[in-house]
Amino acid sequence: MKRTTEKNLMVFSGRAHPDLAVEVTELLGTGLVPQSAYEFANSEIYVRYEESVRGCDAFVIQSHTAPINEWIMEHLIMVDALKRASAKRITVVMPFYGYARQDKKHRGREPISARLMADLFKTAGADRLITVDLHADQIQGFFDGPVDHLMALPILADYVKGKYGGEQLAVVSPDAGRIKVAERWSARLGGAPLAFIHKSRRTDRPNETVANRVVGDVKGRICVLVDDMIDTGGTIVKAAEAIMADGAAGVVIAATHAILSDPAVDRLKNSPATEVVVTNTLPLAEDRHFDKLTCLSIAPLVSRAIREVFEDGSVTSMFDGHA
Amino acid sequence: MKRTTEKNLMVFSGRAHPDLAVEVTELLGTGLVPQSAYEFANSEIYVRYEESVRGCDAFVIQSHTAPINEWIMEHLIMVDALKRASAKRITVVMPFYGYARQDKKHRGREPISARLMADLFKTAGADRLITVDLHADQIQGFFDGPVDHLMALPILADYVKGKYGGEQLAVVSPDAGRIKVAERWSARLGGAPLAFIHKSRRTDRPNETVANRVVGDVKGRICVLVDDMIDTGGTIVKAAEAIMADGAAGVVIAATHAILSDPAVDRLKNSPATEVVVTNTLPLAEDRHFDKLTCLSIAPLVSRAIREVFEDGSVTSMFDGHA
Amino acid sequence: MKRTTEKNLMVFSGRAHPDLAVEVTELLGTGLVPQSAYEFANSEIYVRYEESVRGCDAFVIQSHTAPINEWIMEHLIMVDALKRASAKRITVVMPFYGYARQDKKHRGREPISARLMADLFKTAGADRLITVDLHADQIQGFFDGPVDHLMALPILADYVKGKYGGEQLAVVSPDAGRIKVAERWSARLGGAPLAFIHKSRRTDRPNETVANRVVGDVKGRICVLVDDMIDTGGTIVKAAEAIMADGAAGVVIAATHAILSDPAVDRLKNSPATEVVVTNTLPLAEDRHFDKLTCLSIAPLVSRAIREVFEDGSVTSMFDGHA
Amino acid sequence: MKRTTEKNLMVFSGRAHPDLAVEVTELLGTGLVPQSAYEFANSEIYVRYEESVRGCDAFVIQSHTAPINEWIMEHLIMVDALKRASAKRITVVMPFYGYARQDKKHRGREPISARLMADLFKTAGADRLITVDLHADQIQGFFDGPVDHLMALPILADYVKGKYGGEQLAVVSPDAGRIKVAERWSARLGGAPLAFIHKSRRTDRPNETVANRVVGDVKGRICVLVDDMIDTGGTIVKAAEAIMADGAAGVVIAATHAILSDPAVDRLKNSPATEVVVTNTLPLAEDRHFDKLTCLSIAPLVSRAIREVFEDGSVTSMFDGHA
Amino acid sequence: MKRTTEKNLMVFSGRAHPDLAVEVTELLGTGLVPQSAYEFANSEIYVRYEESVRGCDAFVIQSHTAPINEWIMEHLIMVDALKRASAKRITVVMPFYGYARQDKKHRGREPISARLMADLFKTAGADRLITVDLHADQIQGFFDGPVDHLMALPILADYVKGKYGGEQLAVVSPDAGRIKVAERWSARLGGAPLAFIHKSRRTDRPNETVANRVVGDVKGRICVLVDDMIDTGGTIVKAAEAIMADGAAGVVIAATHAILSDPAVDRLKNSPATEVVVTNTLPLAEDRHFDKLTCLSIAPLVSRAIREVFEDGSVTSMFDGHA
Amino acid sequence: MKRTTEKNLMVFSGRAHPDLAVEVTELLGTGLVPQSAYEFANSEIYVRYEESVRGCDAFVIQSHTAPINEWIMEHLIMVDALKRASAKRITVVMPFYGYARQDKKHRGREPISARLMADLFKTAGADRLITVDLHADQIQGFFDGPVDHLMALPILADYVKGKYGGEQLAVVSPDAGRIKVAERWSARLGGAPLAFIHKSRRTDRPNETVANRVVGDVKGRICVLVDDMIDTGGTIVKAAEAIMADGAAGVVIAATHAILSDPAVDRLKNSPATEVVVTNTLPLAEDRHFDKLTCLSIAPLVSRAIREVFEDGSVTSMFDGHA
Repeated sequence: MKRTTEKNLMVFSGRAHPDLAVEVTELLGTGLVPQSAYEFANSEIYVRYEESVRGCDAFVIQSHTAPINEWIMEHLIMVDALKRASAKRITVVMPFYGYARQDKKHRGREPISARLMADLFKTAGADRLITVDLHADQIQGFFDGPVDHLMALPILADYVKGKYGGEQLAVVSPDAGRIKVAERWSARLGGAPLAFIHKSRRTDRPNETVANRVVGDVKGRICVLVDDMIDTGGTIVKAAEAIMADGAAGVVIAATHAILSDPAVDRLKNSPATEVVVTNTLPLAEDRHFDKLTCLSIAPLVSRAIREVFEDGSVTSMFDGHA
Repeated sequence: MKRTTEKNLMVFSGRAHPDLAVEVTELLGTGLVPQSAYEFANSEIYVRYEESVRGCDAFVIQSHTAPINEWIMEHLIMVDALKRASAKRITVVMPFYGYARQDKKHRGREPISARLMADLFKTAGADRLITVDLHADQIQGFFDGPVDHLMALPILADYVKGKYGGEQLAVVSPDAGRIKVAERWSARLGGAPLAFIHKSRRTDRPNETVANRVVGDVKGRICVLVDDMIDTGGTIVKAAEAIMADGAAGVVIAATHAILSDPAVDRLKNSPATEVVVTNTLPLAEDRHFDKLTCLSIAPLVSRAIREVFEDGSVTSMFDGHA
Repeated sequence: MKRTTEKNLMVFSGRAHPDLAVEVTELLGTGLVPQSAYEFANSEIYVRYEESVRGCDAFVIQSHTAPINEWIMEHLIMVDALKRASAKRITVVMPFYGYARQDKKHRGREPISARLMADLFKTAGADRLITVDLHADQIQGFFDGPVDHLMALPILADYVKGKYGGEQLAVVSPDAGRIKVAERWSARLGGAPLAFIHKSRRTDRPNETVANRVVGDVKGRICVLVDDMIDTGGTIVKAAEAIMADGAAGVVIAATHAILSDPAVDRLKNSPATEVVVTNTLPLAEDRHFDKLTCLSIAPLVSRAIREVFEDGSVTSMFDGHA
Repeated sequence: MKRTTEKNLMVFSGRAHPDLAVEVTELLGTGLVPQSAYEFANSEIYVRYEESVRGCDAFVIQSHTAPINEWIMEHLIMVDALKRASAKRITVVMPFYGYARQDKKHRGREPISARLMADLFKTAGADRLITVDLHADQIQGFFDGPVDHLMALPILADYVKGKYGGEQLAVVSPDAGRIKVAERWSARLGGAPLAFIHKSRRTDRPNETVANRVVGDVKGRICVLVDDMIDTGGTIVKAAEAIMADGAAGVVIAATHAILSDPAVDRLKNSPATEVVVTNTLPLAEDRHFDKLTCLSIAPLVSRAIREVFEDGSVTSMFDGHA
Repeated sequence: MKRTTEKNLMVFSGRAHPDLAVEVTELLGTGLVPQSAYEFANSEIYVRYEESVRGCDAFVIQSHTAPINEWIMEHLIMVDALKRASAKRITVVMPFYGYARQDKKHRGREPISARLMADLFKTAGADRLITVDLHADQIQGFFDGPVDHLMALPILADYVKGKYGGEQLAVVSPDAGRIKVAERWSARLGGAPLAFIHKSRRTDRPNETVANRVVGDVKGRICVLVDDMIDTGGTIVKAAEAIMADGAAGVVIAATHAILSDPAVDRLKNSPATEVVVTNTLPLAEDRHFDKLTCLSIAPLVSRAIREVFEDGSVTSMFDGHA
Repeated sequence: MKRTTEKNLMVFSGRAHPDLAVEVTELLGTGLVPQSAYEFANSEIYVRYEESVRGCDAFVIQSHTAPINEWIMEHLIMVDALKRASAKRITVVMPFYGYARQDKKHRGREPISARLMADLFKTAGADRLITVDLHADQIQGFFDGPVDHLMALPILADYVKGKYGGEQLAVVSPDAGRIKVAERWSARLGGAPLAFIHKSRRTDRPNETVANRVVGDVKGRICVLVDDMIDTGGTIVKAAEAIMADGAAGVVIAATHAILSDPAVDRLKNSPATEVVVTNTLPLAEDRHFDKLTCLSIAPLVSRAIREVFEDGSVTSMFDGHA
């Protein structure tokens, strides 16, 4: 008995950030697969799909936002349910990769949680990953399978170029370790000069910073301060202040992942930055919105990647942009 | 270069239920290994041990209580850190096994989360498990390695026997599926007669019950209503009411795992039960205590198991008790 | 060089129960793949397929009947040969799952053979399982992959309803642990009342029973005594006798798996049951047939499942029936 | 809490060949660990150890004799039970490696059962193998772990030398593929000349032979006809006849594994061989004994290997002998 | 969103033997996928594909010639890059299987490098292997997946038959362990008589031989001396000399794998053989060509196998030839 | 039978850099285990240990120097031989981790060779790794097991401090991505000011650089130019020139790994650097020595790590130094 093989794209979403998933599926022209998902009284998560998923090419979207362990566990449970329900291939879509910052042992007897996450998803049944702007490119190597690593740079940079392209720009990295990102921005902004902030972090609590010093010339320029994520905002706001103190004409902050943990919103509101440009890889609660904040959608990038993966097209062109 | 091999017992505890871990280590005559453990602003968990753990025989205790996904993830991260720090053998001690109730697909397209948990701990680096009173014995088979499955029955039953041994007792199971447990109680209580409640659950939300009917004779007897866990208390309180309606002289509730999710405390307080006997496999917040509640310590059982595992003694004798 | 992908259904059968496999393939409208299979002088099994199986979607049927170790090993060897001959996907079809009763450690130092079987088939190369009426639903979780767990209930219950629907029926479970099955029967038989037999098993030899007591009211009713399997028939015949002693008007026995080890046939013949309804998940030798025995075919269910799996349809509807 | 680590040798035996296991343990000065092992009515095997095995260095002996699938499955189940009971290291001792002859695909769509066996034991929990005189040395490479491959040659050859050392000897291989074994015999017998039988096998039933021709000079010599195993005896007896037809003065047959499937005993009795020397790697039922048969014990070799493995001595010296 | 699934054949080649890969792709009517591949200054290898390979059915050809470790590592790295770039299926094509001669422990404390190679390719991401004339058939069992084992015999034998078919032929094996190959030759050459050379190798350096003696009658015949590979040529040239010394009328050497390490070319030139027939499974540098050498192409065999694998045809017919 | 467990340290060395291994074992007070290791004519590597290694705690040292693929393969084969010879634990010691620079996909369709290496060693049988100054710390997370990551900084920095401590120093990083290393140097050198070179690399050939610009103030200072490795020397020599052009008083180069591929020696000789300080993680051929070169031994660090691992001491203290 012979049949022509068909493949069937199905998109699933956890409950962390449904708006993004809806936007992605609208762009794909499909719907989200309906499901039951809720917590039991003791906070255990339950998931069940309302339609047959047998043989489908599954894409499971979840944003790893706070409470992050709950949403990662829901993500894992969703993958397990797909595996046991005979999905043909399971692609985990994590616009923000949780625990990416614990990507090495800063000191002895620490975990490497970013590797652990890769292994947990593999164990649950993930065949592939799609993610955006990893904290370190090496994290691609933590997963034992294909990883499509998308870049939000073109989305952010084109917006900045459109709005500030007429100004004297500089690109500033708030961290010496992220200058390569700034270089890509510089290329995309027509060769704007680079500067960076020299800071040191506490080794035992790597998201607390200690000191800041501008390296490079920012005087009289509109500085685009670029990073992969804004968590509590301490680093980037101190960088903005240091830049202004060094004579910059203005500061625009751009980052892919808007974690915006407290007190990020207050810090950013009160910072010298005139605009903060982010994407919606993570959900942004109503009370996190503020006047200076511009949130661009990552959905076109993610939906395009899903389509290319489904149709066996090339995602590499999406890495490189025009730069 | 030759050395006599030494083994070194080290006990670690997550943050979910430190009192139990302290009690266990006091009984063992060791201390808990000091560690740093906290959340970052975006709720990611960080763990680091303050002492060398190289070559140790590690026992990692965590209670899977709410917020359960956070504590399970901490448990996994602790195991990862031990593996990468060269612990020789890692035994995961989970007095209550999280997600044990999702041990099968009740309907199509569900996860089997209890198997997933076993695989996640294996992936993180667990060599062995110690756990107490699994929801289904088959869960032992979900883990690819040795599982020491301890029974709290002797602790609970000896207490009940000591206090109510002079009464006319009956043992009642609130669920037809758990009668074997009631039979073991009956044997331990000198052959007290059995009864059970016939109830049906909703297949899509397995912790909601629908109907109750007493099967067996409870008239004029002090009924010991036994179960593995009390979550919201709905099932067991309805069972207590049904028993009293059938003419029982009184009800004592006994269960190993006191989840006590809301509104369990209110239900139990207002129930016809005169005493509720549980163990401390899960932490019991101050506001969960109430007059009728008796909490027995599981620490002697757990510490004895750890010692036997460390010393290659037999744990089987701990399964069977004298019964 | 591009090609449209075709998938090709091929059905293979071990030698334990060829009639069932033939019936399944006739319903599918395919043939069995011809093969050589025999034992060498020292009882080692040899298998070879007579046609190319490259790229096929393979379904390998074997009934785990006595001599069960021989047939399981043949099943494993068949999977190995398919894997090495480049079958694309291998679905193991075991209408009766061998060793399902050893699904936990009843006592220390026992194997969990049901888990071991799942792992052996995975190792040999099985991608998926199809099975019927597992002894415990949790066994689904023993296999690291999709398991389609079919239910014979509709087949058996519709037969019983058609023949005895006009009588006053009761549904009786011979074992307190299997009442949920009886509940499903009750629903399917229009809400017939339930009863069960309270018995205890020897922990060291779990298929020997000790004592029987009817719980629930069976007086004057035709009792449908339901179980997943009949091995030596001791349990179920004692249950039938207990029911009749309690005043039942008659007993009909229904079970999915007719193992019928000695002396089951004699026991059933001499029992008060007027009819014994089973399916052909296991072969029934000529000398196992007797007048009261009705054997319904499981082939329509299995062939429908194979077709749905091959065509990526939904098998879930086959779980739930109309009940 | 620190302890000096002790290791504890424990020897287990399946039911296929208890005499050998008893002899091995007597030589070791230990006892066999007592166990329950039997079949259920439907031929499923049950095993349980009667003593704690926690932390032991386990050696599990089973002879893969007919009914071979039953004994292999018992062997696997014994390993599973040891793994789940926390044995520290599990060494599978298979004096005869079952399915060793299916060590490659002789034709397309065959299994490689010898590799499958290695994987099944690994999956069940085996850490190491000890075996004697593999059909092909490459089978060592099928197991993912250490294999101690013992040679019975010194035992057999020293016996032959002691009895026939004064004669004009020749060493004859019954199969062109096994001449290297004959060469080792020749060296051990002081450089006796070699001859071999040229035969062809049927590719589809590899233990049936077709034609025989003596290559080399055997005239007037006592020929030692050597092989790894005697199954139905057809090959070796035809070889003996061919040698005698070529003018040999006499034939002595020597082989490690005495499978002796029917009609081997009759063939050997009626053959021109004056003596048949084998070892007890496989059990030899009473009715398989006959006057010409000499059975040497393999127990000293196996027990010495177990002791060396337990004490981390060298087994390599046991490979090489004095030759 | 549904699509008909297409499969897409893509052929990749390492740098060891590009001519063979080009010839294979020309026969397939496809091109080689363009790539960058080179060494960094410290001899690390870099590979990148110039086209999207997402979803392709990849065949990766590399000849394991000297420097063999470099080419094997390139082969592994190519597989890794394909896996991470989302190739759907990866078939490793190794016309000559590197390290095949270390297929067992000849003595204690040796590696089994042939098994190691199989595991390394599996780990890198290989799903299947295609190879030609393995040194031992058992090596098929070293890889955990399908192996298509092709035979060059028909190509070589048809050439020899066409050229020497009118002569009095004999088939001679240079090694007692390879007589089965000679038998297949004999059948293909119309039943030509067999002979072989009895030699012994040094166990510690298995490609050095010690002694040679012709067994069988070669007098007055054109002897076809057949082997799987010619490395330094010592064995086969000494065999040729021994044959001539025994009165043969001439010698033709035929072997699949022309390793031709120094001083093979000189030895063969100066040998009594009148022709040396090989295939191009390994590249043959200009300075390795000599007048007596005839190199037949293996490309038709390999390309046919690739096509059958891609189209799910049968490769088995390619094993058996017409013989 | 009980024994006290002993552990036995054994050190093995590949042939890439025997001097380092000898020095390490002399510091440990042990000898290297004698072995046979050589290439066959076709460049396949053969290894065999001359002593029993059963039950040992094995440390296998190999320097991944050119020809790097040969030495990595030898390393893998050595691990395989140890695994199959029953070593108890295998620690791979790679003072320089080969392929560390290919630690991510710089562009699509590249391998992640650094992850591949980790998986290959795991597959061969490595339990643990010891390595020095990884190119990226994240590579620790590529290996599925414990990694002891040693730092050569204290060795290099103490030498520099001793010789140049009285000068006005600056610490310069030749690459923006490695400033954290420079910060650790600065701390160790009493807070010397930092500077770095801004350069861009070609994305397709990551060890070729394009442009250089000094960022920070180096005027009148002795600049310590620090990096993890010197391959062709292009980057670091251009950095030295840029520093001198910016007015530095002098340049001292310090790096852990002295790859020194051509034309590194010429470049360094002719550079403005007055001294080049490296360690012997890689062998330094006679013709690579030059007057300005100072080579410090890494052997004390490696031998101390081996001892701590063997004795279950803490290696963490070796990470952190006094800084």
